[in-house]
Amino acid sequence: MDLELVIIGYVRSSIKDRETAPKMESEEGAVRARIEIDPAYVKGLDSMVPGVQLELFTWFHESDRTPLMVHPRGSVNRPMRGVFTTRSPNRPNPIGLHRVTLIEMESPGVLVVEPLEAIDGTPIIDIKPKPRGMK
Amino acid sequence: MDLELVIIGYVRSSIKDRETAPKMESEEGAVRARIEIDPAYVKGLDSMVPGVQLELFTWFHESDRTPLMVHPRGSVNRPMRGVFTTRSPNRPNPIGLHRVTLIEMESPGVLVVEPLEAIDGTPIIDIKPKPRGMK
Repeated sequence: MDLELVIIGYVRSSIKDRETAPKMESEEGAVRARIEIDPAYVKGLDSMVPGVQLELFTWFHESDRTPLMVHPRGSVNRPMRGVFTTRSPNRPNPIGLHRVTLIEMESPGVLVVEPLEAIDGTPIIDIKPKPRGMK
Repeated sequence: MDLELVIIGYVRSSIKDRETAPKMESEEGAVRARIEIDPAYVKGLDSMVPGVQLELFTWFHESDRTPLMVHPRGSVNRPMRGVFTTRSPNRPNPIGLHRVTLIEMESPGVLVVEPLEAIDGTPIIDIKPKPRGMK
Protein backbone atom coordinates (compact mmCIF):
# COMPACT_ATOMS: atom_id res chain seq x y z
CA MET A 1 0.00 0.00 0.00
CA ASP A 2 1.43 3.38 -1.05
CA LEU A 3 1.37 5.77 1.91
CA GLU A 4 3.85 8.27 0.53
CA LEU A 5 2.60 11.84 0.87
CA VAL A 6 3.11 14.46 -1.81
CA ILE A 7 3.91 18.05 -0.81
CA ILE A 8 1.33 20.39 -2.35
CA GLY A 9 2.90 23.62 -1.04
CA TYR A 10 4.75 25.38 1.76
CA VAL A 11 4.02 27.79 4.60
CA ARG A 12 5.67 31.21 4.21
CA SER A 13 5.71 32.86 7.61
CA SER A 14 7.62 35.35 9.75
CA ILE A 15 7.89 32.51 12.28
CA LYS A 16 11.35 31.17 11.51
CA ASP A 17 11.92 28.58 14.23
CA ARG A 18 10.14 26.77 17.04
CA GLU A 19 11.44 29.03 19.83
CA THR A 20 11.73 32.74 18.99
CA ALA A 21 9.15 34.11 16.61
CA PRO A 22 8.79 37.67 15.35
CA LYS A 23 5.23 37.54 14.09
CA MET A 24 3.32 39.31 11.33
CA GLU A 25 0.03 40.05 13.03
CA SER A 26 -3.38 41.19 11.92
CA GLU A 27 -5.18 43.96 13.80
CA GLU A 28 -6.70 41.31 16.05
CA GLY A 29 -3.26 39.94 16.98
CA ALA A 30 -3.53 36.64 15.12
CA VAL A 31 -0.54 35.41 13.14
CA ARG A 32 -1.05 35.82 9.43
CA ALA A 33 0.85 33.63 6.98
CA ARG A 34 1.06 32.78 3.29
CA ILE A 35 0.50 29.38 1.74
CA GLU A 36 2.33 28.92 -1.56
CA ILE A 37 0.83 26.08 -3.58
CA ASP A 38 3.02 24.20 -6.06
CA PRO A 39 2.05 25.07 -9.67
CA ALA A 40 1.25 21.39 -10.26
CA TYR A 41 -1.63 21.62 -7.74
CA VAL A 42 -2.96 25.17 -8.28
CA LYS A 43 -5.93 23.87 -10.31
CA GLY A 44 -7.16 22.24 -7.07
CA LEU A 45 -7.81 25.75 -5.69
CA ASP A 46 -10.42 26.56 -8.37
CA SER A 47 -13.50 28.31 -6.85
CA MET A 48 -11.70 29.05 -3.55
CA VAL A 49 -13.36 32.15 -2.05
CA PRO A 50 -11.93 34.57 0.58
CA GLY A 51 -13.67 34.37 3.95
CA VAL A 52 -14.02 30.59 3.87
CA GLN A 53 -12.83 28.61 6.88
CA LEU A 54 -10.31 25.91 6.05
CA GLU A 55 -8.66 22.93 7.63
CA LEU A 56 -5.00 23.08 6.71
CA PHE A 57 -2.97 19.87 7.00
CA THR A 58 0.79 20.27 7.45
CA TRP A 59 3.74 17.96 8.03
CA PHE A 60 5.81 18.81 11.12
CA HIS A 61 9.10 18.14 9.32
CA GLU A 62 11.24 18.87 12.40
CA SER A 63 9.46 16.32 14.60
CA ASP A 64 10.83 13.28 16.36
CA ARG A 65 8.61 10.40 15.22
CA THR A 66 9.73 7.86 17.83
CA PRO A 67 8.19 8.78 21.25
CA LEU A 68 4.92 7.03 22.22
CA MET A 69 4.79 8.70 25.66
CA VAL A 70 5.13 12.48 26.02
CA HIS A 71 4.74 15.25 28.60
CA PRO A 72 1.51 17.16 27.78
CA ARG A 73 2.26 20.56 26.24
CA GLY A 74 5.98 19.84 26.59
CA SER A 75 5.85 20.52 30.33
CA VAL A 76 8.07 18.13 32.34
CA ASN A 77 5.90 18.93 35.39
CA ARG A 78 3.01 17.05 33.79
CA PRO A 79 3.15 13.25 33.95
CA MET A 80 3.91 11.47 30.69
CA ARG A 81 0.99 9.97 28.81
CA GLY A 82 0.24 8.30 25.49
CA VAL A 83 1.06 10.51 22.52
CA PHE A 84 -2.41 9.86 21.01
CA THR A 85 -3.99 11.59 24.03
CA THR A 86 -2.03 14.77 23.18
CA ARG A 87 -1.54 17.06 20.18
CA SER A 88 2.26 16.92 20.44
CA PRO A 89 4.06 17.52 17.12
CA ASN A 90 6.30 14.59 18.03
CA ARG A 91 4.27 11.54 16.98
CA PRO A 92 4.49 8.56 14.59
CA ASN A 93 2.88 10.54 11.74
CA PRO A 94 3.57 14.22 12.51
CA ILE A 95 0.49 15.63 10.77
CA GLY A 96 -0.53 19.12 11.87
CA LEU A 97 -4.14 20.29 11.65
CA HIS A 98 -4.84 24.03 11.67
CA ARG A 99 -8.17 25.83 11.45
CA VAL A 100 -7.65 29.03 9.49
CA THR A 101 -9.65 31.69 7.66
CA LEU A 102 -8.76 32.52 4.07
CA ILE A 103 -8.14 36.28 4.09
CA GLU A 104 -7.33 36.64 0.40
CA MET A 105 -6.04 34.95 -2.71
CA GLU A 106 -2.93 37.04 -3.28
CA SER A 107 -2.35 35.34 -6.64
CA PRO A 108 -3.73 32.11 -8.16
CA GLY A 109 -1.41 29.93 -6.07
CA VAL A 110 -0.90 32.07 -2.95
CA LEU A 111 -3.35 32.06 -0.04
CA VAL A 112 -3.15 34.51 2.86
CA VAL A 113 -4.55 32.86 5.99
CA GLU A 114 -4.85 33.42 9.73
CA PRO A 115 -4.24 32.42 12.41
CA LEU A 116 -1.39 30.05 11.58
CA GLU A 117 1.26 29.04 14.08
CA ALA A 118 3.59 27.08 11.83
CA ILE A 119 7.19 27.78 10.96
CA ASP A 120 8.35 29.08 7.60
CA GLY A 121 8.99 26.21 5.22
CA THR A 122 6.50 23.77 6.77
CA PRO A 123 5.14 21.45 4.03
CA ILE A 124 1.40 21.57 3.27
CA ILE A 125 -0.19 18.20 2.52
CA ASP A 126 -3.92 18.98 2.26
CA ILE A 127 -6.55 21.73 2.40
CA LYS A 128 -10.22 20.99 3.12
CA PRO A 129 -13.19 23.29 3.73
CA LYS A 130 -14.56 23.15 7.26
CA PRO A 131 -17.28 20.44 7.49
CA ARG A 132 -20.91 21.54 7.19
CA GLY A 133 -22.60 22.06 10.50
CA MET A 134 -19.36 22.49 12.46
CA LYS A 135 -19.16 25.66 14.58
CA MET B 1 12.41 14.76 3.31
CA ASP B 2 10.71 11.56 4.52
CA LEU B 3 6.95 11.82 4.03
CA GLU B 4 6.18 8.11 4.29
CA LEU B 5 3.27 7.43 6.64
CA VAL B 6 3.19 4.49 9.04
CA ILE B 7 -0.07 2.61 9.62
CA ILE B 8 -0.87 2.63 13.35
CA GLY B 9 -4.03 0.52 13.09
CA TYR B 10 -7.13 -0.36 11.09
CA VAL B 11 -10.87 0.34 11.15
CA ARG B 12 -13.02 -2.74 11.86
CA SER B 13 -16.55 -1.96 10.72
CA SER B 14 -19.75 -3.55 9.40
CA ILE B 15 -19.37 -1.14 6.45
CA LYS B 16 -17.67 -3.38 3.90
CA ASP B 17 -17.62 -1.23 0.77
CA ARG B 18 -18.28 2.30 -0.45
CA GLU B 19 -21.74 1.57 -1.85
CA THR B 20 -23.86 -0.87 0.16
CA ALA B 21 -23.37 -0.77 3.89
CA PRO B 22 -25.16 -2.84 6.52
CA LYS B 23 -24.39 -0.76 9.59
CA MET B 24 -23.90 -1.55 13.27
CA GLU B 25 -25.77 1.28 14.92
CA SER B 26 -26.03 2.68 18.41
CA GLU B 27 -29.43 3.51 19.88
CA GLU B 28 -29.08 7.00 18.43
CA GLY B 29 -28.54 5.61 14.92
CA ALA B 30 -24.86 6.54 14.58
CA VAL B 31 -22.48 4.00 13.07
CA ARG B 32 -20.28 2.40 15.68
CA ALA B 33 -16.91 0.92 14.73
CA ARG B 34 -13.78 -0.57 16.25
CA ILE B 35 -10.26 0.77 15.88
CA GLU B 36 -7.59 -1.92 16.27
CA ILE B 37 -4.21 -0.40 17.08
CA ASP B 38 -1.03 -2.24 16.08
CA PRO B 39 0.72 -3.68 19.18
CA ALA B 40 3.79 -1.57 18.31
CA TYR B 41 1.75 1.63 18.96
CA VAL B 42 -0.54 0.60 21.85
CA LYS B 43 1.63 2.44 24.39
CA GLY B 44 0.58 5.67 22.65
CA LEU B 45 -2.97 5.09 23.98
CA ASP B 46 -1.86 5.32 27.64
CA SER B 47 -4.33 7.44 29.71
CA MET B 48 -7.02 7.32 26.99
CA VAL B 49 -10.40 7.73 28.74
CA PRO B 50 -13.89 6.77 27.44
CA GLY B 51 -16.12 9.73 26.68
CA VAL B 52 -13.32 11.80 25.16
CA GLN B 53 -13.85 13.33 21.73
CA LEU B 54 -11.19 12.42 19.21
CA GLU B 55 -10.00 13.42 15.78
CA LEU B 56 -9.29 10.25 13.87
CA PHE B 57 -7.06 10.46 10.81
CA THR B 58 -7.47 7.75 8.19
CA TRP B 59 -6.03 6.99 4.76
CA PHE B 60 -8.65 6.51 2.02
CA HIS B 61 -6.77 3.60 0.48
CA GLU B 62 -9.29 3.12 -2.35
CA SER B 63 -9.03 6.70 -3.58
CA ASP B 64 -7.92 8.04 -6.93
CA ARG B 65 -5.15 10.54 -6.14
CA THR B 66 -5.02 12.21 -9.56
CA PRO B 67 -8.10 14.50 -10.00
CA LEU B 68 -7.64 18.19 -9.14
CA MET B 69 -11.20 19.11 -10.18
CA VAL B 70 -14.21 17.18 -8.83
CA HIS B 71 -18.00 17.33 -8.69
CA PRO B 72 -18.98 18.37 -5.12
CA ARG B 73 -20.40 15.42 -3.15
CA GLY B 74 -19.91 13.21 -6.22
CA SER B 75 -22.95 14.75 -7.91
CA VAL B 76 -22.48 15.23 -11.67
CA ASN B 77 -25.24 17.87 -11.52
CA ARG B 78 -22.93 20.16 -9.55
CA PRO B 79 -20.26 22.00 -11.56
CA MET B 80 -16.69 20.77 -11.09
CA ARG B 81 -14.47 22.77 -8.75
CA GLY B 82 -11.02 22.55 -7.19
CA VAL B 83 -10.58 19.46 -5.04
CA PHE B 84 -9.25 21.60 -2.14
CA THR B 85 -12.66 23.35 -1.94
CA THR B 86 -14.30 19.94 -1.30
CA ARG B 87 -13.91 17.04 1.13
CA SER B 88 -13.80 14.44 -1.67
CA PRO B 89 -11.88 11.27 -0.73
CA ASN B 90 -10.24 11.49 -4.17
CA ARG B 91 -7.40 13.99 -3.64
CA PRO B 92 -3.58 14.15 -3.87
CA ASN B 93 -3.17 13.01 -0.24
CA PRO B 94 -6.35 11.07 0.62
CA ILE B 95 -6.36 11.80 4.34
CA GLY B 96 -9.69 11.35 6.09
CA LEU B 97 -10.58 13.32 9.22
CA HIS B 98 -13.37 11.99 11.45
CA ARG B 99 -14.71 13.46 14.67
CA VAL B 100 -15.69 10.58 16.95
CA THR B 101 -16.49 9.88 20.58
CA LEU B 102 -14.60 7.11 22.38
CA ILE B 103 -17.34 4.83 23.73
CA GLU B 104 -15.05 2.31 25.41
CA MET B 105 -11.62 0.71 25.48
CA GLU B 106 -12.62 -2.86 24.66
CA SER B 107 -9.06 -4.05 25.34
CA PRO B 108 -5.74 -2.18 25.58
CA GLY B 109 -5.44 -1.82 21.80
CA VAL B 110 -9.10 -1.76 20.74
CA LEU B 111 -11.20 1.42 20.77
CA VAL B 112 -14.96 1.44 20.18
CA VAL B 113 -15.95 4.77 18.61
CA GLU B 114 -18.91 6.48 16.98
CA PRO B 115 -19.96 7.84 14.59
CA LEU B 116 -17.53 6.51 12.00
CA GLU B 117 -18.39 6.26 8.31
CA ALA B 118 -15.29 4.44 7.06
CA ILE B 119 -15.04 1.05 5.41
CA ASP B 120 -13.66 -2.02 7.13
CA GLY B 121 -9.88 -2.21 6.69
CA THR B 122 -9.28 1.53 6.34
CA PRO B 123 -5.79 2.35 7.69
CA ILE B 124 -5.54 4.65 10.72
CA ILE B 125 -2.65 7.12 10.63
CA ASP B 126 -3.22 9.35 13.69
CA ILE B 127 -5.46 9.98 16.69
CA LYS B 128 -5.59 13.37 18.44
CA PRO B 129 -7.84 14.71 21.21
CA LYS B 130 -10.21 17.45 20.10
CA PRO B 131 -8.52 20.87 20.54
CA ARG B 132 -9.28 22.82 23.71
CA GLY B 133 -11.98 25.40 23.26
CA MET B 134 -13.47 23.76 20.17
CA LYS B 135 -17.20 23.09 20.30
